[in-house]
Amino acid sequence: MLDRYSRPALREIWSDRRRFETWLEVELSACAAMEEEPGWGVPVGTAARVREKAAGRIDPARILAIEQQTRHDVIAFLTHVEELAGAEARWLHLGMTSSDVLDTSLALQLCAAVDAIDGGLGLLCDALRRRAIEHRATPMIGRSHGIHAEPTTLGLVFAGLLAETTRNRRRLAAARDEIAVGKIAGAVGTYAHLDPAIEARALGRLGLRPETVATQIVARDRHAVLFDALAVTAASIERIALAIRHWQRTEVGEAEEAFGKGQKGSSAMPHKKNPILSENLTGLARLVRGYAGAALEDIALWHERDISHSSVERVIGPDATMLVDFMAQRAAALVDGLVVHPERMRANLDLTRGLIFSEGVMLALVKKGLPRQQAYELVQRCALAARDANTALRDRLGSDDEVARHLSPADLDGCFDLAHHLRHAEAVLARALGEPGTGKE
Amino acid sequence: MLDRYSRPALREIWSDRRRFETWLEVELSACAAMEEEPGWGVPVGTAARVREKAAGRIDPARILAIEQQTRHDVIAFLTHVEELAGAEARWLHLGMTSSDVLDTSLALQLCAAVDAIDGGLGLLCDALRRRAIEHRATPMIGRSHGIHAEPTTLGLVFAGLLAETTRNRRRLAAARDEIAVGKIAGAVGTYAHLDPAIEARALGRLGLRPETVATQIVARDRHAVLFDALAVTAASIERIALAIRHWQRTEVGEAEEAFGKGQKGSSAMPHKKNPILSENLTGLARLVRGYAGAALEDIALWHERDISHSSVERVIGPDATMLVDFMAQRAAALVDGLVVHPERMRANLDLTRGLIFSEGVMLALVKKGLPRQQAYELVQRCALAARDANTALRDRLGSDDEVARHLSPADLDGCFDLAHHLRHAEAVLARALGEPGTGKE
Amino acid sequence: MLDRYSRPALREIWSDRRRFETWLEVELSACAAMEEEPGWGVPVGTAARVREKAAGRIDPARILAIEQQTRHDVIAFLTHVEELAGAEARWLHLGMTSSDVLDTSLALQLCAAVDAIDGGLGLLCDALRRRAIEHRATPMIGRSHGIHAEPTTLGLVFAGLLAETTRNRRRLAAARDEIAVGKIAGAVGTYAHLDPAIEARALGRLGLRPETVATQIVARDRHAVLFDALAVTAASIERIALAIRHWQRTEVGEAEEAFGKGQKGSSAMPHKKNPILSENLTGLARLVRGYAGAALEDIALWHERDISHSSVERVIGPDATMLVDFMAQRAAALVDGLVVHPERMRANLDLTRGLIFSEGVMLALVKKGLPRQQAYELVQRCALAARDANTALRDRLGSDDEVARHLSPADLDGCFDLAHHLRHAEAVLARALGEPGTGKE
Amino acid sequence: MLDRYSRPALREIWSDRRRFETWLEVELSACAAMEEEPGWGVPVGTAARVREKAAGRIDPARILAIEQQTRHDVIAFLTHVEELAGAEARWLHLGMTSSDVLDTSLALQLCAAVDAIDGGLGLLCDALRRRAIEHRATPMIGRSHGIHAEPTTLGLVFAGLLAETTRNRRRLAAARDEIAVGKIAGAVGTYAHLDPAIEARALGRLGLRPETVATQIVARDRHAVLFDALAVTAASIERIALAIRHWQRTEVGEAEEAFGKGQKGSSAMPHKKNPILSENLTGLARLVRGYAGAALEDIALWHERDISHSSVERVIGPDATMLVDFMAQRAAALVDGLVVHPERMRANLDLTRGLIFSEGVMLALVKKGLPRQQAYELVQRCALAARDANTALRDRLGSDDEVARHLSPADLDGCFDLAHHLRHAEAVLARALGEPGTGKE
Repeated sequence: MLDRYSRPALREIWSDRRRFETWLEVELSACAAMEEEPGWGVPVGTAARVREKAAGRIDPARILAIEQQTRHDVIAFLTHVEELAGAEARWLHLGMTSSDVLDTSLALQLCAAVDAIDGGLGLLCDALRRRAIEHRATPMIGRSHGIHAEPTTLGLVFAGLLAETTRNRRRLAAARDEIAVGKIAGAVGTYAHLDPAIEARALGRLGLRPETVATQIVARDRHAVLFDALAVTAASIERIALAIRHWQRTEVGEAEEAFGKGQKGSSAMPHKKNPILSENLTGLARLVRGYAGAALEDIALWHERDISHSSVERVIGPDATMLVDFMAQRAAALVDGLVVHPERMRANLDLTRGLIFSEGVMLALVKKGLPRQQAYELVQRCALAARDANTALRDRLGSDDEVARHLSPADLDGCFDLAHHLRHAEAVLARALGEPGTGKE
Repeated sequence: MLDRYSRPALREIWSDRRRFETWLEVELSACAAMEEEPGWGVPVGTAARVREKAAGRIDPARILAIEQQTRHDVIAFLTHVEELAGAEARWLHLGMTSSDVLDTSLALQLCAAVDAIDGGLGLLCDALRRRAIEHRATPMIGRSHGIHAEPTTLGLVFAGLLAETTRNRRRLAAARDEIAVGKIAGAVGTYAHLDPAIEARALGRLGLRPETVATQIVARDRHAVLFDALAVTAASIERIALAIRHWQRTEVGEAEEAFGKGQKGSSAMPHKKNPILSENLTGLARLVRGYAGAALEDIALWHERDISHSSVERVIGPDATMLVDFMAQRAAALVDGLVVHPERMRANLDLTRGLIFSEGVMLALVKKGLPRQQAYELVQRCALAARDANTALRDRLGSDDEVARHLSPADLDGCFDLAHHLRHAEAVLARALGEPGTGKE
Repeated sequence: MLDRYSRPALREIWSDRRRFETWLEVELSACAAMEEEPGWGVPVGTAARVREKAAGRIDPARILAIEQQTRHDVIAFLTHVEELAGAEARWLHLGMTSSDVLDTSLALQLCAAVDAIDGGLGLLCDALRRRAIEHRATPMIGRSHGIHAEPTTLGLVFAGLLAETTRNRRRLAAARDEIAVGKIAGAVGTYAHLDPAIEARALGRLGLRPETVATQIVARDRHAVLFDALAVTAASIERIALAIRHWQRTEVGEAEEAFGKGQKGSSAMPHKKNPILSENLTGLARLVRGYAGAALEDIALWHERDISHSSVERVIGPDATMLVDFMAQRAAALVDGLVVHPERMRANLDLTRGLIFSEGVMLALVKKGLPRQQAYELVQRCALAARDANTALRDRLGSDDEVARHLSPADLDGCFDLAHHLRHAEAVLARALGEPGTGKE
Repeated sequence: MLDRYSRPALREIWSDRRRFETWLEVELSACAAMEEEPGWGVPVGTAARVREKAAGRIDPARILAIEQQTRHDVIAFLTHVEELAGAEARWLHLGMTSSDVLDTSLALQLCAAVDAIDGGLGLLCDALRRRAIEHRATPMIGRSHGIHAEPTTLGLVFAGLLAETTRNRRRLAAARDEIAVGKIAGAVGTYAHLDPAIEARALGRLGLRPETVATQIVARDRHAVLFDALAVTAASIERIALAIRHWQRTEVGEAEEAFGKGQKGSSAMPHKKNPILSENLTGLARLVRGYAGAALEDIALWHERDISHSSVERVIGPDATMLVDFMAQRAAALVDGLVVHPERMRANLDLTRGLIFSEGVMLALVKKGLPRQQAYELVQRCALAARDANTALRDRLGSDDEVARHLSPADLDGCFDLAHHLRHAEAVLARALGEPGTGKE
């Protein structure tokens, strides 16, 4: 992934060096387990001695050079470890197949990547929580279809995004659990030259569980679930970005991305402040969707495995996790720094001159005994008339004889009371802030 | 979805009649909750009286006719209920918005569909479990890259597919829980003309929970998670189908789909038996992947909602659940009826004349003290020579001087012992059969 | 596809009846070609006699009943034709394989569907052209990032959408040409019991070309190209829908969907007019993208064919073409009936009080000799000050000493001249209206 | 993209240096056009002088450093050019917007990438053509559903793949034409501070055409078409890879990837030769499908543009073209070096002991006057009996009384004549080899 869309911490997880060091850890875990298992014949202390000579000294360039000839990455790696650690290295990889190392290592790298993503989502939750509390009483117009509907609060909007982000953290945690699975079970998963006891010991040391029934590899439905969870998380961040983009529209102007000092919005138009960070997140979500699609095609492999999933994972393992990590961090900063204009929110609330309170009027009429359809049509008639004449709905209704037959001026005033509309907002907010996993429970 | 690829039970869940009857249930639940809530003014017994007049009598054609004029489905529905139940129907939908009805009903329909799918997956698990036990000691060649690798058993293959299917049942159960969420919270989720207590009461009656923070609708990340789980399940079934297709290849011949009496394989070639049911499943999985992609795009909607998700869900709600239900049922029947040819499995095991035991020989050499690379090259040399000369590897090794320096004839015999290779198969099988959720725990 | 999202004309193309009648046409074309080919032994007049007895009389229900037993659709069809036409039917399907019939028929159905879609796109082009001409001089603000940029005209927007739609018609025409290919070449495309001359004769009669090298089937890259073209077309229609949705936003109000008499916008809010038709198109485009993804997976089949593509095509053949046909028709009606508010466009043009002319000021400064960066910063300073103080940019610039050193009041006035900004609009419009394929060249 | 899956030539096209140098070319083309256009005020020779000072000297690191502050890449670039070329650089970018540079440059880079891909596809066509001619008379079994069907030739298989690859070259050429479009039309495509004549001049110099109606950018349907063509091309290469994987299966053994000297197939199993290059291509095709999906979502942007497409294109522009370029080159080498085993093909042809000739027998019976269904059932009965008894179909038929009533021994022999089956192979081959665009016409 481009440096532009990834953080160094994630690039490190997916670096050649980290990958090869992780391979070594897996080999050493297996070797140590064999030392401990009676009758396996591996001299006690082998793993420790090889670690001393090789750990931290793996030279990725050397391995790639050997791979040029062997065209097999794990064999190249083992050859290099033998160069570093000498003859004792022959006790490594005993009875194992390449995928024992590769899949177990992939699990460790993916878990590390998910942990980093969760950190970013935690920051995002913190920011959403803080802004939700800050704006718990900031009224704004709720919009459906892009059309003014009824009032809500900015706090509720943030609370909803917080609840969704919290759900995504739970999903990623569940997906992490699904892929926290390794395999040291040999060429077709039968432990022909191994033992389930050794696998359990070795994986336990690494914080992983054994695959229930491995083939040559860990089953790929597990990984697909992770990439799907990443795609959902990316789409939820896209939802946040989309909200910001709408708020920042010139005509709406309710909130805007913080504008860095020295930042230029346009090479041609000096006055512009564009929500480019949010637009960028919108695009990145599309990429993550594409990666998830490829992961789904990796599930149905031939027999005990074909290696078609490997090239896919070499690309989307890093790319999808780097992007979602980057998206989470950027979204956290965006929400944290978002410049809010409550006065524009108030102005927009008044834009339709009271039309947004029409439902309350209709319901008041129904409670007074009007059939629902008749009430609907009466209010719709007044609403469209008010709209066309650009008068306030309250005034239009007040001068309507039919309305007057049912509702007193005080009844009407009650229908246009903003505080009454928002009386349950606090309770909903509390529901979102109190959810487990929102970071502050 | 075509009748060809759906079961009547699922078509019923998604029928117009069922949808409208579910809408009525939701309206009546809300109405009954309002009756019970003090100060709400809905006369006690309203819901019961409307139910008596309208439930089971909804006329979908009449609603569609009204919708032609109003271009609004819920208003058309309410108009029709008023036709059936008379003036009291005005107490329905009080303070509610269309999505309160639609999203709550969608949750009920999706839950019903997932329950049906789980039934099919249960049958599939039963079949896989039965065949795994039946073939727990049926040896077959394990293949990686389509190339013979080392022996495994057919029981283990079924056990692996059982473990994967069991995981999918758990995922679908988790996804069902995510979408078992309704909403009776009004136009923008603020309960402006409602009360959270009414929602809790009404949804509880329907077996649903309230959305933490609704907008006009329940958040769509929940639904995307379900469609993703369906796509993963479909791909896992595709994996089963792919295995059958490979086994049935003319050159492999290890298993084949049961061939119905009177069935014709080809209009041109009277001798053919084709794995068409499995191929069909392979194609259907592609469709479900496409539906999941569309669901991911539904997450980021405008503000408190735009209705773009609706047309998507009208199609993929039925189509994706019908297909996966159909796939589960068909896969269960396929596995159940699969004609297995153990004798061809044995013949194929011998096809490489012992090459599949080469790893054991290499490991025996390593244990005798040979460096790993040297052992690898020695065995590779013998293996390729045996292959080119079409002689048995055991014979070729027996006549190799260098091999003889390290391994006795008895050592070599041990390397070619099938039972030894498969000594852990039972333990792995037990692991899969004992998993919670496999249907027989 | 749901009736709601498809037209009867398209449903007819994909009906069982039409499919079976098309199969008959293909069989009869092949039969007639064999009659004409010397030495083939088919009695002259066979095709004519079978046609007389069977054409127009195919009973889909009967065929499906037979298929229940044979599990093979083409054999069931042939059996039924024999029921209708008697013994002479044995001359049908001679040396042919099912796919000879199926793929050739699919080509005919797809061509018919594309022709219908092109009709809808033609209507859309007509509407876009008419509205482009109508609003060739209607100024509106151009927006990038949702932020006011510089003026454009509504006519230009329509012209751009016209150009894009015209490109899609060309692409669909090219894709139609790619799939206007049939195959009467036998079980694996070798004409083992046929003759290329017969195929050429038979397909020519049907308006198709022979596949260059068939396997059992016509190659599926051809079909993928068509579904991709449909997905691009759907996304272009989504672009039109998105424009309308933005224009109709409460705060923007520049245009809106025509609102049917009696139509109701919301069950809860009587005042609302929502752009639901456009939102609907937005959702449908997501579905078509999903179908295109499935078609891409159909390309790489096993050897001379596997039948996994068949279930995919049974679904997406109808669904994708029906949806795009429906989308084209709906988009045409939407554009045709769009209610435009030029006065709101003028009001919005003035919303930033002249900021949208800032680039012209900057360029004027550069032409007077200021370095670009200095000019940029000078204008940005004035623009942000005007924005913050809510004064007109023209006034703010007029009172700035540094600006005054470079630009006279007349220079400044020139920078704020709308007509000057739009002086090239006519030329661009002409470019779009004159393109071949726009329907009026 | 990983070095592992990309060629240096493509990495150069997408390097920072190349991108910035291309930007400079676009700016200089526009500047030169302004010099030539009367009344524009740009001093003659400006472009030449700036080129002399700046071309080939762009320092990407310096631009990225400036971008850190401005957060705007084109402004950072222009600032750097001013550092290199001095005051005259103020004549660059006059009246232009960033996208004038970016989109025009992107077109040039994409065209260069497509040209490189076409080179690889040309090599692939050469290899397919050569192998098709080499094996024009190598018989092999044709397979449908993975089941032996009727004989074909390896030459025909290669010819079919050649025809498909040739189609992809034509599609990519058409897509290249679609994106060979630039734009120098200002902030919203109105030429407010520019002139269509200048654009035409500047783009002509670069080998591009002007966008018919630009917004701030070139319309994104054009780019989606290119990424779709890449996805189809990738899937066609996947089809080639899949064929090789099937041929190399242990049980089939008809062809195999060339195995490099020193290459190791498996870390555990020294005897293995795995089709890993083909499997790798299978995986890469999945990635390209994912990229195409993202491109389709870039089409519907907000108003005159939002920048969400940009992050998508920064990733998939390089990644998709690099992968398809790599795939084409690898596929060419694979086909070129493929080790073919005609003797295994012959052996496999005999595997069913004549069942593959059953259709000819059935047709012979029909020609003798048997009703089709009766002939079908007669041959099916004999075929299944022969299969079950493992006897040759010719023998089984020869001993069947009912068959004998219709067919003489000589008739039967004719049905089993391989040469007769393949008599049209040459004509089909000629059709594929003679197609325009196959590289040797």
